[in-house]
Amino acid sequence: MAKTNPGRFFEDYSIGQVIAHAVPRTVSGGERALYHALYPARHALYSSDQFAQSCGLPASPLDDLAAFHVVFGKTVPDVSLNAVANLGYAEGRWLRPVYPGDTLRATSEVIGLKQNSNGKTGVVYVRTRGLNQHDEVVLEYVRWVMVRKRDIDAPAPETTLPDLKPVLAAQDLEVPDGLAFTGYDFTLAGEPHRWGDYAIGEQIDHVDGVTIEEAEHMMATRFWQNTAKVHFDATFRPDGQRLIYGGHVISMARTLSFNGLANAQMIVGLNAGSHANPCFSGDTVKAWSEVLDKAETGKQGVGAIRLRLVATKGGAPFQLRDEAGKYLPEVLLDLDYWALMPM
Amino acid sequence: MAKTNPGRFFEDYSIGQVIAHAVPRTVSGGERALYHALYPARHALYSSDQFAQSCGLPASPLDDLAAFHVVFGKTVPDVSLNAVANLGYAEGRWLRPVYPGDTLRATSEVIGLKQNSNGKTGVVYVRTRGLNQHDEVVLEYVRWVMVRKRDIDAPAPETTLPDLKPVLAAQDLEVPDGLAFTGYDFTLAGEPHRWGDYAIGEQIDHVDGVTIEEAEHMMATRFWQNTAKVHFDATFRPDGQRLIYGGHVISMARTLSFNGLANAQMIVGLNAGSHANPCFSGDTVKAWSEVLDKAETGKQGVGAIRLRLVATKGGAPFQLRDEAGKYLPEVLLDLDYWALMPM
Amino acid sequence: MAKTNPGRFFEDYSIGQVIAHAVPRTVSGGERALYHALYPARHALYSSDQFAQSCGLPASPLDDLAAFHVVFGKTVPDVSLNAVANLGYAEGRWLRPVYPGDTLRATSEVIGLKQNSNGKTGVVYVRTRGLNQHDEVVLEYVRWVMVRKRDIDAPAPETTLPDLKPVLAAQDLEVPDGLAFTGYDFTLAGEPHRWGDYAIGEQIDHVDGVTIEEAEHMMATRFWQNTAKVHFDATFRPDGQRLIYGGHVISMARTLSFNGLANAQMIVGLNAGSHANPCFSGDTVKAWSEVLDKAETGKQGVGAIRLRLVATKGGAPFQLRDEAGKYLPEVLLDLDYWALMPM
Repeated sequence: MAKTNPGRFFEDYSIGQVIAHAVPRTVSGGERALYHALYPARHALYSSDQFAQSCGLPASPLDDLAAFHVVFGKTVPDVSLNAVANLGYAEGRWLRPVYPGDTLRATSEVIGLKQNSNGKTGVVYVRTRGLNQHDEVVLEYVRWVMVRKRDIDAPAPETTLPDLKPVLAAQDLEVPDGLAFTGYDFTLAGEPHRWGDYAIGEQIDHVDGVTIEEAEHMMATRFWQNTAKVHFDATFRPDGQRLIYGGHVISMARTLSFNGLANAQMIVGLNAGSHANPCFSGDTVKAWSEVLDKAETGKQGVGAIRLRLVATKGGAPFQLRDEAGKYLPEVLLDLDYWALMPM
Repeated sequence: MAKTNPGRFFEDYSIGQVIAHAVPRTVSGGERALYHALYPARHALYSSDQFAQSCGLPASPLDDLAAFHVVFGKTVPDVSLNAVANLGYAEGRWLRPVYPGDTLRATSEVIGLKQNSNGKTGVVYVRTRGLNQHDEVVLEYVRWVMVRKRDIDAPAPETTLPDLKPVLAAQDLEVPDGLAFTGYDFTLAGEPHRWGDYAIGEQIDHVDGVTIEEAEHMMATRFWQNTAKVHFDATFRPDGQRLIYGGHVISMARTLSFNGLANAQMIVGLNAGSHANPCFSGDTVKAWSEVLDKAETGKQGVGAIRLRLVATKGGAPFQLRDEAGKYLPEVLLDLDYWALMPM
Repeated sequence: MAKTNPGRFFEDYSIGQVIAHAVPRTVSGGERALYHALYPARHALYSSDQFAQSCGLPASPLDDLAAFHVVFGKTVPDVSLNAVANLGYAEGRWLRPVYPGDTLRATSEVIGLKQNSNGKTGVVYVRTRGLNQHDEVVLEYVRWVMVRKRDIDAPAPETTLPDLKPVLAAQDLEVPDGLAFTGYDFTLAGEPHRWGDYAIGEQIDHVDGVTIEEAEHMMATRFWQNTAKVHFDATFRPDGQRLIYGGHVISMARTLSFNGLANAQMIVGLNAGSHANPCFSGDTVKAWSEVLDKAETGKQGVGAIRLRLVATKGGAPFQLRDEAGKYLPEVLLDLDYWALMPM
């Protein structure tokens, strides 16, 4: 019996199956430090314990995306080792902040299956949950990927498509216990713009750019214990390039968006996301955002803002698709998320 | 209203103005770990809690230069985003060690203004202070930068030049509370040379060299939450090169100086500093030092030593300026600082 | 008197001499975080406090190889600064786990000396011990290196060759106090294979590969406070290449071996090791293992497995030597170690 993990193939998934992912991870101040080294992260709530306490939290939590990547990384050996494509995200919700000392693990439930008409691949939908050491769900999201079949002659499963919300409603968002923006210090946060200053439809060019290096994206991707060969092994692809983990682009774009969205502090919802084009070392990543929606949460001074975050590798800001509706070749990421902002 | 930070221009500064910089930062063991990965840091006081305790401190503090970079980084969006040149430093003093768990923030007071004769730029002098969560000043320094004017027709301010000490006197230096070198372990520290073994005028070639990589200086610079585009974006300069943050060269040279100055433990004063020439990826940084002065502090076994620290990218050691008094092209840094050393 | 460390030459060593190495180091969660960024580390015992506690330990220890590298790094200025070659390892034993908050220091005792027939170099054998802040030995190993003579005319010392075990016996291995694999969670650990599932002679191709970057190996090597110029200074070797620290290859291969040996949790013995060929930036490191032996420890569910770990930079797995018995040019490392595994 081979000892190495061949990954799961399409016919290995069944509706209702729950996969417990391996390698729990305890986080510490070290994780925060590395996040600051790998990304231009400056949101004050994730940088300063005092600032977080002034917002009603016990301490500065691990960045929401760092928590996401830790959970995501655990799913790779079970969900996407034989994946041809990462197709989408939906219903992502951050339910509890993660603090230094917490230990994260992850499970995924198969909620959708559809064999492709070519008979060689199929689409698998999983709802992944990240749990802490108290078995509390800290975040959850739905992801669907196209996976190879091991045996082309294996019978197709009954097609099941999950009923997914195209966008989370404001009442779906979880405002962390105790969070209050009533005493929010805009000076320390870095920008004066509050929830009321953003208009639906407003677009923001985040101006700054980062040229990506191999060493950085590999360190980041390893850091999330994501082991997909394509990110690390220059001999794996015929073109000798290492594909950059899409999550690296997400974190790069989100942290670049500080410049203009410094007060979009906590990510609480992920409505959708597309890795529109691959990113490689040498690309210079920039980002722009668009305000898609706003909502009140009814909590102490906390507003919700729905943002489109677009990462590019060149080209002008605010350009997304061509006339045929296809993503422009310089667009790397199109993410739709909800953040919490002082009102 | 544009949401991104355009930075301040020369006419936005006025004498006496105090700028509270954004993004407080809580440090942990993670910051120490990364400092050890980014620089060849080996000073025992900053590596071992036990060693620091044997010197009378409660624990191993954050490296003095790491504390400096954290504070410096916070000032960039407010002071040097539109700077043409970083002209100098003076009166830098480290007043209290920074420990894991401390949260740093920074303020700058404008103490000097002088419009240049070209009418397009001016020099701004600020005294920057780093404060901890108890509002205690942990370090302070004066920096002056040349900044663009937004509007060339804006009236020139009255010229005010601060009265700066060319060199801090020994009595200006703060010896941390409790620090004692009476039980100093020279073996664990790495070298037998004590304060009395160094002669004024003595020069030390630190021998070791490090060839700089893009990924490393970007991780370091991001780590200090320094966001100046020129360090990260290869498309920003016409030559496609990313300029390396001068502070990266300072830390590289200081840590290389361990070899010959292992007992120059704590940096307590910064008299002056020039980034003589730019540093780029691929340069091999070496360092040499010269003993400029010595002084007793009157504290338990603690001597002060004033050092010139020069970083180079090639060339022979101990060469600094050409016949015209100009820095040689291979000189990267000329720093003048005070350190504490066992007597 | 020159202030920099010239290193020891062959005639500076004498049998029985004990060298106390400099720069003690306190480790924290930051060290674990960086280990996860630098290597694809996924062994659950070193990733999760909860998992480690379920195995009877108080918390997740520092990775055994990280502890080894920290100790090894301290010896470099005293043992291998003038070394021509790192010849071998033997009798490596991990005696106590290292936890965040522990402070490590190291000593080496000279246990063997043999001048080479060319009269220019000699072989020095040292037994190095890593100690924690309680002066407990946490690990020890024998290493021998070829060192230059300062003065070719210095008399040869009497030849003394230590009596080294070619392989540690099972009873030489220290099972950490309290360790129990009776409640071991194979799902969280990542693989179902237990001690009984591995057969002596079995070979495992670990499949995954990592293409090495300069920035990464320099960060890792600096992180261990290993200062050998050849790893950092591209101007040091005539070919302009930076030689990669052999320990970087060891950690890369060990962490790649997770895929197939996820349950070989703790390294407790190092029988032998050869850095068969140099590794440079751009090489793609892969690994394979062979089960050399198995033993019971008599402790709660804990078996011992002796493994050959081979790192390569190309070529097919399971190829080690040519017909003349010489390592193949693509072999980087041949390591022989004992690990603990659930029975």
